[in-house]
Amino acid sequence: MYNELKTSNRILMGPGPSDAHPRVLKAMATPLIGHLDPEFVTIMDEVKMMVQQTFLTKNHLTFVVSAPGSAGMETCLVNLIEPGDEVIICINGVFGGRMVDIAERCGAIVHKIEKKWGAVVTTEDVKKALDHCPKPKMLALVHAETSTGALQPLEDISNMIHNAGGLFMVDAVTSYCGVPLKVDEWGIDAIYTGTQKCLSAPPGLSPVSFSDRAVKALENRKTKVQSWFLDLTLVKNYWGGAKRAYHHTAPVSSVFALRESLRIVLEEGLENRWKRHQDVHQVLKEKLENLGFTYLVDEQYRLPNLNSVFLPEENDEALIRNKLLKDYNIEVGGGLGAFAGKIWRIGIMGESCTLNHVNLLVSALEDIKEFKR
Amino acid sequence: MYNELKTSNRILMGPGPSDAHPRVLKAMATPLIGHLDPEFVTIMDEVKMMVQQTFLTKNHLTFVVSAPGSAGMETCLVNLIEPGDEVIICINGVFGGRMVDIAERCGAIVHKIEKKWGAVVTTEDVKKALDHCPKPKMLALVHAETSTGALQPLEDISNMIHNAGGLFMVDAVTSYCGVPLKVDEWGIDAIYTGTQKCLSAPPGLSPVSFSDRAVKALENRKTKVQSWFLDLTLVKNYWGGAKRAYHHTAPVSSVFALRESLRIVLEEGLENRWKRHQDVHQVLKEKLENLGFTYLVDEQYRLPNLNSVFLPEENDEALIRNKLLKDYNIEVGGGLGAFAGKIWRIGIMGESCTLNHVNLLVSALEDIKEFKR
Repeated sequence: MYNELKTSNRILMGPGPSDAHPRVLKAMATPLIGHLDPEFVTIMDEVKMMVQQTFLTKNHLTFVVSAPGSAGMETCLVNLIEPGDEVIICINGVFGGRMVDIAERCGAIVHKIEKKWGAVVTTEDVKKALDHCPKPKMLALVHAETSTGALQPLEDISNMIHNAGGLFMVDAVTSYCGVPLKVDEWGIDAIYTGTQKCLSAPPGLSPVSFSDRAVKALENRKTKVQSWFLDLTLVKNYWGGAKRAYHHTAPVSSVFALRESLRIVLEEGLENRWKRHQDVHQVLKEKLENLGFTYLVDEQYRLPNLNSVFLPEENDEALIRNKLLKDYNIEVGGGLGAFAGKIWRIGIMGESCTLNHVNLLVSALEDIKEFKR
Repeated sequence: MYNELKTSNRILMGPGPSDAHPRVLKAMATPLIGHLDPEFVTIMDEVKMMVQQTFLTKNHLTFVVSAPGSAGMETCLVNLIEPGDEVIICINGVFGGRMVDIAERCGAIVHKIEKKWGAVVTTEDVKKALDHCPKPKMLALVHAETSTGALQPLEDISNMIHNAGGLFMVDAVTSYCGVPLKVDEWGIDAIYTGTQKCLSAPPGLSPVSFSDRAVKALENRKTKVQSWFLDLTLVKNYWGGAKRAYHHTAPVSSVFALRESLRIVLEEGLENRWKRHQDVHQVLKEKLENLGFTYLVDEQYRLPNLNSVFLPEENDEALIRNKLLKDYNIEVGGGLGAFAGKIWRIGIMGESCTLNHVNLLVSALEDIKEFKR
């Protein structure tokens, strides 16, 4: 009645998922073992250590949420916010806006720093917000805005919010394992990411880490966390502690794949991986500019791994994007929100970050008759 | 630094995950495609139709939560409960208790029907609860209690709660595709399940379905759903509707595997599958009783697919269970909560429901010297 699964052999150069390494796909197909099997407990321990290594953190409360990055975002917010808490949230794209939505559902009083999409938040912006709200529970922002391709500097803002006595929360979904990210050195108190971007694992899990300061805030809560599934006072005993306490059933296969993708990152080395993304970006950038594309984000705040670009004038972006997919099996992303129909988001992330990917895309564009330089 | 992934070739006869079919594992390893790719949209549509067919429902709001069964439970509760709502929740094991915990986090006034673990809820129990709370927003219970192996009759209770004007919510994590379950015929308004039990897919997703009555309750909410990630007013536009709206990134590989596992269920036929679980259970039951095991649950309320049994006296359950795992690669489950250290939970679910599984387990027990009949 339903046919065998048949999918085209896509080349993934959108905002994620990116191409998965064959070793990761192979791990995904490993026969299942029980989620409380001693062998799986060891695997969880190893994954936790590798997440610590790739986040560059010693945080004890480091683990993996059994759901995609958006659930990682919600995990950080529901565990740290109590009704009536004042928080500062920076919005310069879709995902900052999503943080506000979730924080308000937690009963937070949200002070927004709103920036033009594609711009980044400055220390001046934060200073003004702190003038209005001098004692916030936390400040949250997005390191790499997947909707715009902007890379947010973090260190100065981290110092400012700590001086004000608040926590520093960061969305690292699109930056993790693709650009420099140093959780301990930069004083990040709560961070979440996804698996399907520069890690090149299938989507579905969200690595998360909390600093001791954030753990203290969690322990000092006066109210219960509003989500049971995401309640870290429960989840932490599943991902650590002397005795594993059953909480939910971990997605065993996805954890196998995550383990393999982390292993691949550590084999390459974080710094080499950051450099590879930067190097391939330079090549892509030159070739795109030769074709008449222009970048949305100022050069100094540009993400190397997610290239948000305007097409040369007079091009029908949906038509060309469709041709790329249908005739060349190449996926690039369209715009989100304010930029829908206006920009492309070209991802070169993880396994999709190679010179061959760049050449395939550029050659296909050169081929397509309807594409006007 | 970290070795290649190595796992033992387990035979999964615990409370889940169960053994996955090689076709499902193969689907899991399919190279990724984008989650907004037209091909993936078609796959989501097919999965939705197959979930409808296996739930025996025509409910439009049928979809898959991108997280394990516990998140499916939370999805049903957070979408249907508003602060101050009165709900009746039946507790006869771990999972009824978990529902209470979540409902209270949603601000519900919970009226509990508490039964001895291993027993089921009767119409008398429900009548008494309705005397105390004549107009509940809903009544929630567990169809197949994974912690005890009890199978809860549903139809009469469904009629009673509907007559009182309330919604009927059911946990079908361990019953789905293993024992008769008829969502429309039995008037179930909100149902969730998991993938790693009688469906034999890897854990990580939760099929969910809402009746039109439940959708109406959702549409009539006065307050926002407290979880953004699980908010069905948003999720439903990702899993259906004229135009797909991006919500989160679906776990592409897990959806591939779910599709294949559903296809296998429909090839076998639901009724054949229910019969297979019952038939293999009969064989297992006789052989276990010959070895001196006794069942926790009365015969008429016994789940065929999850056998909760006391070991013959004088056996050290942990020692024998450990020997089964170490020497025979066979996983059976220990007890949860009140039954920790007291019972075994032997699962014969989906691909783990074969005469060969029964024989492997029974033969291993006959071999083990420390096992006392």
